[in-house]
Amino acid sequence: MSGRPDPRADAARRPGPTTRARVGQMRSGTLHERRDDLATEEPLEIRIRSGAEHRTVAITMRTPGHDFELAAGFLHGEGVAAPDDVVSIAYCTDEDVPAQARYNTVTVRLRGPLPALPSLDRHFMTSSACGVCGTASLDALRDRCRPLPADRGLRVSPEVLYELPGRLRRAQGVFGKTGGLHAAGLFTPGGEPLVVREDVGRHNAVDKLVGWAATTGRLPLDGHLLMVSGRTSYEIMQKALAAGLPVVCAVSAPSSLAVELAGEFGMTLVGFLREERFNVYAGAHRLTP
Amino acid sequence: MSGRPDPRADAARRPGPTTRARVGQMRSGTLHERRDDLATEEPLEIRIRSGAEHRTVAITMRTPGHDFELAAGFLHGEGVAAPDDVVSIAYCTDEDVPAQARYNTVTVRLRGPLPALPSLDRHFMTSSACGVCGTASLDALRDRCRPLPADRGLRVSPEVLYELPGRLRRAQGVFGKTGGLHAAGLFTPGGEPLVVREDVGRHNAVDKLVGWAATTGRLPLDGHLLMVSGRTSYEIMQKALAAGLPVVCAVSAPSSLAVELAGEFGMTLVGFLREERFNVYAGAHRLTP
Repeated sequence: MSGRPDPRADAARRPGPTTRARVGQMRSGTLHERRDDLATEEPLEIRIRSGAEHRTVAITMRTPGHDFELAAGFLHGEGVAAPDDVVSIAYCTDEDVPAQARYNTVTVRLRGPLPALPSLDRHFMTSSACGVCGTASLDALRDRCRPLPADRGLRVSPEVLYELPGRLRRAQGVFGKTGGLHAAGLFTPGGEPLVVREDVGRHNAVDKLVGWAATTGRLPLDGHLLMVSGRTSYEIMQKALAAGLPVVCAVSAPSSLAVELAGEFGMTLVGFLREERFNVYAGAHRLTP
Repeated sequence: MSGRPDPRADAARRPGPTTRARVGQMRSGTLHERRDDLATEEPLEIRIRSGAEHRTVAITMRTPGHDFELAAGFLHGEGVAAPDDVVSIAYCTDEDVPAQARYNTVTVRLRGPLPALPSLDRHFMTSSACGVCGTASLDALRDRCRPLPADRGLRVSPEVLYELPGRLRRAQGVFGKTGGLHAAGLFTPGGEPLVVREDVGRHNAVDKLVGWAATTGRLPLDGHLLMVSGRTSYEIMQKALAAGLPVVCAVSAPSSLAVELAGEFGMTLVGFLREERFNVYAGAHRLTP
């Protein structure tokens, strides 16, 4: 109808990780106007496709950037598709759709028939006639994730952990500018950063990081540490477990169910990691004395 | 089968807002074990019912406490049910279900037929053939929320705003103990706290607060201020708008779409509110000089 889109005009309309905005700064009782960067928040629709069949799996508010990783990591974490199931990942190519919306839709092409999605919107549905609970959520998780082995593998020193918050902060790009993003970093046992991902959504930052590992053939991440900038919840721990990550560290507190999950599945969970101090909530055997 | 449940035993199994846990504290290179409180995280299933018909609307991870308010606030914020539509709110009463799971299911009985729920899992679905975007999300919101009037109503002074973070913190109960909860507080234009709600989920804290207003006949909240402990996203702003709240303040940064929503709907959005400083991203006309 409107002919071929102009690729350069397209790129200009593609949402970036930050958005310029006019901001009033109140300082010492006076309001000054200036321009500032905000963390961009835009919806992303994640679709799966096989042959002519396709289905929307999720629509999530996210910060644009690393969208293919976000889609791959989300599908892995939810048990929808393993890396080997993925044929290709692409933005929407429908030329009748505005460029901005095209960059908000990612289609993951899968090998074989589309998987059933019985419980994606209801992670915690159980077969009981009435009611859900944390213990049932952990039971459901057991169907697709095995506990991590305690007797071999990763050991980390407290000194390495002390360094992680600062290294995560230094590796963050957008955060420094906007203060508005959650970060997730993947580290070697020696504390070297491998990849850091940011997002307005806590879960998305972890999905992007796991998606990076999924799309570069690095899963499972059994010899690695995950460090997140905020708190740890059931969902963060579930994503880490699905990726095989044995150690999860956070700047802030864990929830009760995050701790329960870590204990049940043999994971090490560290919280309040700040200024050469931390708490360990599960899996202290992975710490060297 | 098992006879009537013992109400006292029931109450003991009812999940509380905090959970005791054994924690290893690493201080000055030595690991000490102690007991500590964690913020409880448990799933809550929100159901709606009319006559014999019922439907699950959402399952959300939440901190137990004020569950009826959470359900009422969620249904209001999503446009499913206004306060007048609600006949009663109750926990699951099926005696065959374990007590803990019973307290994780809330049924909201509605007047009249159950509303259609076409888009609850897809807040941002638009009618376009392919793709979603932030602008379309705001357009969809316009169908059920009108912009707040700019010319009358609330005016607030910077001095009142300066006080809000401290007042929110002092009113928080569980946070001080666990460090693991988001908080949302409702304040008068003079800065007096009316109600503070906490949750592991940012959105849940706001839902509980709006649910408090819904179940006590206080909606719309057009003469009030909302203060949240974290960041502001599209979803927080959408819930505040649906409740008629003209002023939203946050300790941290807003997202681009939060700012866009505030601008489009005539709301005042304040961020980085700390130590007698703040940024105003929209609606500065509500600030007194």
